[in-house]
Amino acid sequence: MSKVKTNSYVLFYYNSSKKWLQKISKNETLHTHIGMIKHSDAIGKEFGSRIITNKNKYVYVLEPTTFDFISKIQHGTQIVYPKDLGYIVARAGIQSGQKIVEIGTGSASLTTFIASIVKPKGHVYTFDVNPDFMKIAEKNIKKVGMEKHITMKKMDLKTAKKIPIKDVDIVIVDLGDPWTVVSQARKMLKGSGTIVSICPTMNQLEKLASSLVQNEFTDIECTENILRTIDAREGKTRHSFQGIGHTTYLCFARKAFFDRKTATRKKKSIAKA
Amino acid sequence: MSKVKTNSYVLFYYNSSKKWLQKISKNETLHTHIGMIKHSDAIGKEFGSRIITNKNKYVYVLEPTTFDFISKIQHGTQIVYPKDLGYIVARAGIQSGQKIVEIGTGSASLTTFIASIVKPKGHVYTFDVNPDFMKIAEKNIKKVGMEKHITMKKMDLKTAKKIPIKDVDIVIVDLGDPWTVVSQARKMLKGSGTIVSICPTMNQLEKLASSLVQNEFTDIECTENILRTIDAREGKTRHSFQGIGHTTYLCFARKAFFDRKTATRKKKSIAKA
Amino acid sequence: MSKVKTNSYVLFYYNSSKKWLQKISKNETLHTHIGMIKHSDAIGKEFGSRIITNKNKYVYVLEPTTFDFISKIQHGTQIVYPKDLGYIVARAGIQSGQKIVEIGTGSASLTTFIASIVKPKGHVYTFDVNPDFMKIAEKNIKKVGMEKHITMKKMDLKTAKKIPIKDVDIVIVDLGDPWTVVSQARKMLKGSGTIVSICPTMNQLEKLASSLVQNEFTDIECTENILRTIDAREGKTRHSFQGIGHTTYLCFARKAFFDRKTATRKKKSIAKA
Amino acid sequence: MSKVKTNSYVLFYYNSSKKWLQKISKNETLHTHIGMIKHSDAIGKEFGSRIITNKNKYVYVLEPTTFDFISKIQHGTQIVYPKDLGYIVARAGIQSGQKIVEIGTGSASLTTFIASIVKPKGHVYTFDVNPDFMKIAEKNIKKVGMEKHITMKKMDLKTAKKIPIKDVDIVIVDLGDPWTVVSQARKMLKGSGTIVSICPTMNQLEKLASSLVQNEFTDIECTENILRTIDAREGKTRHSFQGIGHTTYLCFARKAFFDRKTATRKKKSIAKA
Repeated sequence: MSKVKTNSYVLFYYNSSKKWLQKISKNETLHTHIGMIKHSDAIGKEFGSRIITNKNKYVYVLEPTTFDFISKIQHGTQIVYPKDLGYIVARAGIQSGQKIVEIGTGSASLTTFIASIVKPKGHVYTFDVNPDFMKIAEKNIKKVGMEKHITMKKMDLKTAKKIPIKDVDIVIVDLGDPWTVVSQARKMLKGSGTIVSICPTMNQLEKLASSLVQNEFTDIECTENILRTIDAREGKTRHSFQGIGHTTYLCFARKAFFDRKTATRKKKSIAKA
Repeated sequence: MSKVKTNSYVLFYYNSSKKWLQKISKNETLHTHIGMIKHSDAIGKEFGSRIITNKNKYVYVLEPTTFDFISKIQHGTQIVYPKDLGYIVARAGIQSGQKIVEIGTGSASLTTFIASIVKPKGHVYTFDVNPDFMKIAEKNIKKVGMEKHITMKKMDLKTAKKIPIKDVDIVIVDLGDPWTVVSQARKMLKGSGTIVSICPTMNQLEKLASSLVQNEFTDIECTENILRTIDAREGKTRHSFQGIGHTTYLCFARKAFFDRKTATRKKKSIAKA
Repeated sequence: MSKVKTNSYVLFYYNSSKKWLQKISKNETLHTHIGMIKHSDAIGKEFGSRIITNKNKYVYVLEPTTFDFISKIQHGTQIVYPKDLGYIVARAGIQSGQKIVEIGTGSASLTTFIASIVKPKGHVYTFDVNPDFMKIAEKNIKKVGMEKHITMKKMDLKTAKKIPIKDVDIVIVDLGDPWTVVSQARKMLKGSGTIVSICPTMNQLEKLASSLVQNEFTDIECTENILRTIDAREGKTRHSFQGIGHTTYLCFARKAFFDRKTATRKKKSIAKA
Repeated sequence: MSKVKTNSYVLFYYNSSKKWLQKISKNETLHTHIGMIKHSDAIGKEFGSRIITNKNKYVYVLEPTTFDFISKIQHGTQIVYPKDLGYIVARAGIQSGQKIVEIGTGSASLTTFIASIVKPKGHVYTFDVNPDFMKIAEKNIKKVGMEKHITMKKMDLKTAKKIPIKDVDIVIVDLGDPWTVVSQARKMLKGSGTIVSICPTMNQLEKLASSLVQNEFTDIECTENILRTIDAREGKTRHSFQGIGHTTYLCFARKAFFDRKTATRKKKSIAKA
């Protein structure tokens, strides 16, 4: 039975739009619209217990998941949403033990989520050029406790002459101009490894897809994920009135070899004929 | 550099609808509409290489990911699709190292996918009652190489008097009547642990949501994921004409404690007042 | 060339979320966040012209369409949204000249829209039981200038012993319990005429569909329409961040005759055999 | 009570994917997978009646609506689907009595649908350059009985020096390069009149939107409509497994006057200051 202690992270949960991620500190009090929440009220409670605010509202003391950390992450840039993170994992087949490269760390929401999956034997190498974002990213990575599984480096991969790592399972690109790093991503990837790109606009998808073909990638798939919530209540079940808008499109492709050298002898003999 | 050997699994990839998962065997030949593919042509090639059929069509020899295994799994029952698997991982915050229970193994597509994430220190315990499905499941688990990380057992949890495992991070229910195991799932879950349910119909969502409230679950969320593919081609980018239909709805909730004993003293004093 | 006059309705359009429907009155001034709009500035202008507020913002003087009237209608109840109105017209094949019955007038947004299509020779007969809604409805019908093409009556069709009208092309039901009027709707409809129902919940769809089968309707179709807006801008085209949530589901069916009398002789001989 | 006669159009309806539009002819027999349907069995029956095939299957004899005609239209080109037709009507506020121009007749599915709404006092003027399509279009227009309300002309509006008609309420463009006719459409439209364009690709939307701004259009809205069908059955209601893919995006805008002459005096005095 896991109990809340000083320095534990907790999610104080009132409802799906009112919830607060906090690091427990003996003398801290959280001020909210539903009243004051004393951190000390949570200490010693089992996760899942409810406490009460000074305005008589119940609040659940939940153990934060990676979903909660990502939803509540401090971000200077656009984050990648859970619905998109999930599909990246499923479509690229990300699994424990893999070596992953991320180009464009941003606020590290994707970085920490992927690290939580590939750990303890896998690793995420993440690159950015903006020191301000990198400071935020570093803080977020520590918060989720993933620092052992992530290596962050300031490096512009568009212009880097030496690629920093090889034989990578998956390269994830989160840049405004993803096509500029496709050839570098290719060098880092193992044979038939997957490139994934976060593309908020259709124009990015279009340019990227062209670049992927030119750089000998195959199995190119562009998708978008629409997440809809449903209010399931007896006798009046329906989709939620609140809509969820566009976040990003995604693009997936696998490194192939189009050239002759890697093709079979048969091919050569056909070419001769 | 990883090369194809005898007994390697490969995905022979022609296009997104014509692809074949095969275990390489020296003398095997695969007969397809685009010609014969000799397994021996792939042996010794780097993954990502292309070979050629006797009808002069190029086929890429890809290293299968969990996505490929799931897409090509033998199934006697409805499988859980990658788009839904991904959101389960992201919303429940599934990560490496966790202890997961699955009620309703089916063809083990979900089982193997989750195992590939929680391994090597985590584990999936999966329960079913249908020996026919369990045979198929066993085969599929071995194919993906996840047998060390999965324990499958024939057991009807609806009626089981002793729960087989405790302190579980996440319980995933894939039954036609998920509400029948909510109280058992609760017993297995750690405090604030997450229950996830695969619900193909709205009626299942409705009944399940009621049962979750009665069983002291909070943060109940019902969703559906719509995946759309986009044809990104220069000057004519648009969504695909081929539509993707309904697969399943999903329901998430977290184990809480509604009763007085676990609430704060403040609550008691208020109750007295 | 059509110009704005006193008593003309105009739509003062600043952008898609800031627009005002007004009846022009010489001395009127509209106070908005983007400044004061003097009605007199619009008088004599051609529709489509722009005028300027005292805060130097341009506002277009547009001739309101039925879309604008519906979007800006005063409503005591939930209105039917344009995306749903449109599909009702297309799926039921509503056209000029038809005789339409509406059960549940509400704020008359649907009523006026349908009337604008069936006029001048067609007619909409609409029934409600709530005098408060009916007052609002009457005002809205006059505003759009459809009073000649609509007959509104206070009548509870669930209990009405005499049906008020026959040989109707289409009956549209906008009630919380649409199944209660299916048999009455049937009596009003011509052979193979269409019933349409606005059903915000899945439970309503389910109950209604059962009732339609029992009441000898065929070609039953339940749908929902998701409208997504796209920001089309050079080099950065994408779906809008703002999502559009659930409004309602729709149900369509056609009056058939399941009984023997109307079937062919062949059928009878088969029955005998 | 309306009965089936020789030369009546009927829809023989078995289920939503098996239905046949036929013109009744005494001695005709329709051969289908569910058996032979004798036209003569339908003659004299009330619409909505059921007849029986020689394989003992029931078929309903329905009176075709514009929806049925459009769904079953003979088409050499891509048709506009009902879900999109409906939103065009609702968003542009198309109503009985209007003067409509269509550029790009295609197979006339949109033409006949719009004509069925604007008749009897309104009119649709439609232009195409392809004589083969125009022959098909002519046939379809006659089938639906809309020839009195439609004027079709062979004319290339991109290059036409004289515009054929003025003071039009709505111009609908169904061309691969809609931006080429925007300035011509503008000349035909009345002040604040609406242009609508059928754009299957994102690139078309993007180019068109730019052109609309340059040509002084306002209230530009780009949308897509996703239609989902729901299987509403007691205890197992859910979305249909069969998905519905992409058809087209739509673009709407209204003719405005950006130039100084039409703006107010106030604007001039501000400009001076």
